[in-house]
Amino acid sequence: MSQSWDSSIKDELQMVELEIHRSIRSEQPVLTEICGYVISSGGKRMRPGVTILSYLASGGKDVSEAIKIAAAFEMIHSATLIHDDINDRSEKRRGRLSAYKKFGLQQALVSGDFLFVKAFAIGGFFNEEIVSLVAEACTAIAESEIVQFEKEGEIAPLDVYLGIIEGKTAKPIMAGARIGAYLAKASPERIHAMGEYGLNIGMAFQIVDDILDIVGTESSLGKPRMVDFYEGKATLPLIHAMEDPEVGQRISQLFHSKVKGNEDIEEVFSLISRTDAVERSKEKAKEYAEKAIKALEGLPDSEHRTGLRRLAAKVVDRNY
Amino acid sequence: MSQSWDSSIKDELQMVELEIHRSIRSEQPVLTEICGYVISSGGKRMRPGVTILSYLASGGKDVSEAIKIAAAFEMIHSATLIHDDINDRSEKRRGRLSAYKKFGLQQALVSGDFLFVKAFAIGGFFNEEIVSLVAEACTAIAESEIVQFEKEGEIAPLDVYLGIIEGKTAKPIMAGARIGAYLAKASPERIHAMGEYGLNIGMAFQIVDDILDIVGTESSLGKPRMVDFYEGKATLPLIHAMEDPEVGQRISQLFHSKVKGNEDIEEVFSLISRTDAVERSKEKAKEYAEKAIKALEGLPDSEHRTGLRRLAAKVVDRNY
Repeated sequence: MSQSWDSSIKDELQMVELEIHRSIRSEQPVLTEICGYVISSGGKRMRPGVTILSYLASGGKDVSEAIKIAAAFEMIHSATLIHDDINDRSEKRRGRLSAYKKFGLQQALVSGDFLFVKAFAIGGFFNEEIVSLVAEACTAIAESEIVQFEKEGEIAPLDVYLGIIEGKTAKPIMAGARIGAYLAKASPERIHAMGEYGLNIGMAFQIVDDILDIVGTESSLGKPRMVDFYEGKATLPLIHAMEDPEVGQRISQLFHSKVKGNEDIEEVFSLISRTDAVERSKEKAKEYAEKAIKALEGLPDSEHRTGLRRLAAKVVDRNY
Repeated sequence: MSQSWDSSIKDELQMVELEIHRSIRSEQPVLTEICGYVISSGGKRMRPGVTILSYLASGGKDVSEAIKIAAAFEMIHSATLIHDDINDRSEKRRGRLSAYKKFGLQQALVSGDFLFVKAFAIGGFFNEEIVSLVAEACTAIAESEIVQFEKEGEIAPLDVYLGIIEGKTAKPIMAGARIGAYLAKASPERIHAMGEYGLNIGMAFQIVDDILDIVGTESSLGKPRMVDFYEGKATLPLIHAMEDPEVGQRISQLFHSKVKGNEDIEEVFSLISRTDAVERSKEKAKEYAEKAIKALEGLPDSEHRTGLRRLAAKVVDRNY
């Protein structure tokens, strides 16, 4: 069996977990409980993994600072998940009740704020350049969410879709990859290249996520499928499906109807499978993954570089 | 007519406004609009005022850093107001629709996150000690909100009430006052004393807020009165009113009923006016304000020290 992408950084990822759990300790046990519930719910730890691999592959020797920043990014990610679930009224997340369903809206909203604060408290130990990169990533998340709300129920043009996933997923991973290389005192060119890696792997990851929303199974996704269609979010496979000369118009009609029943979802699912939308989207994800791998070319060979390559391959070849 | 508390820092407060408006610029105009709506809705600017007066009264000469931190604290305050209104389902704030009512829950939630991020981005230009103080203040806000939710509908013991208002109001003002003195390179004793000023004026301010929720008028408050009673929040005047030997039991009974009608609110309002609850609460607020003024004793005389004294007097002697 081939080794996993993170086999060279198992210890470091364990230290990220410890850093996070240390950071979310609170006088109010319920805050620690909610944050711990979300953070321990089986995320893939791709974000902290990219930061740490970027640091080590760029020649960094003392991983402790990269671990802190990796923890901060994972906490920011978890905070946005908590708030997203409130905004989308999502009841399930990774096979369990979403935080707001389990603990209540008020508690979940404040827990998200608490996680943001604790992540920035970690960031505060670093210099202005790093804080700016973290803040820019968070700004991109917020701005892309606003675009996403505005476009809900509409067929977004391709560039709008790409802009949304760049802001909400790719730019934060890009920032983590850049900071990893920056902390390793890499050259500006290397920092830029690692940023390109992060940006492209993030794009690939989100497109595959959007594909899995259609072709995944509820048990592997840990939530119902076809949620994007149901919520009126025009993802890449949905955009492509609506371009289909035969069934596109019907999919578009159902996409635009305000009330969607189970039979509509089943119909769209079956119509999409008659198009090449999923294949075309997968091709696009592969393109991004290849760009990510290409960005690694200047890096000296190492097990960490191998890890980054494996991650790029894994991101497009996964079913959950 | 006596001068206002902020007469010596009008220019600086104007610069705080500019700093905030510069910080909330976004590629997504709606984010700038929502943040601007909340920030320009007529807050008293007590928080930035305390930071700037603390800086100047402590001998600070270059106010630009204090202005940045003051802006960050006002932005954090605004972010918590936006999220609080979502949590409390408050429809009015300072005489206007709350942000979530006007712009929608999703947009308001993300705007609050955006403000937090932008405030911490400002904080990132400062050293670890300052970031820690800001983060501690934000942690205190989140933790006290959790206690407040947990105690909703209960008569909280006095110390729980005092703990809640300390966390949500007094500690953030304390942090701003401390940072002002710290930036002015004041002695540790002076920094501590300014923190005591901030803490005590914050306690006084919140108790008066809780009194005004009962005795204020809707037009001066910019929102309905008796909201705390309606939402089951046991504030100091309500706690005292429920201790009254004659009418306390009836108030307590109405406080604990899950559904409260207009006639219940009118009855409680009239019952409270037969107790000394408001007077006793006002005495408590005055005690805190006096402690705040006492904390200024070591400061050299200046127009800014006068401003801080005036603010302490104003906080307990206001009707909005």
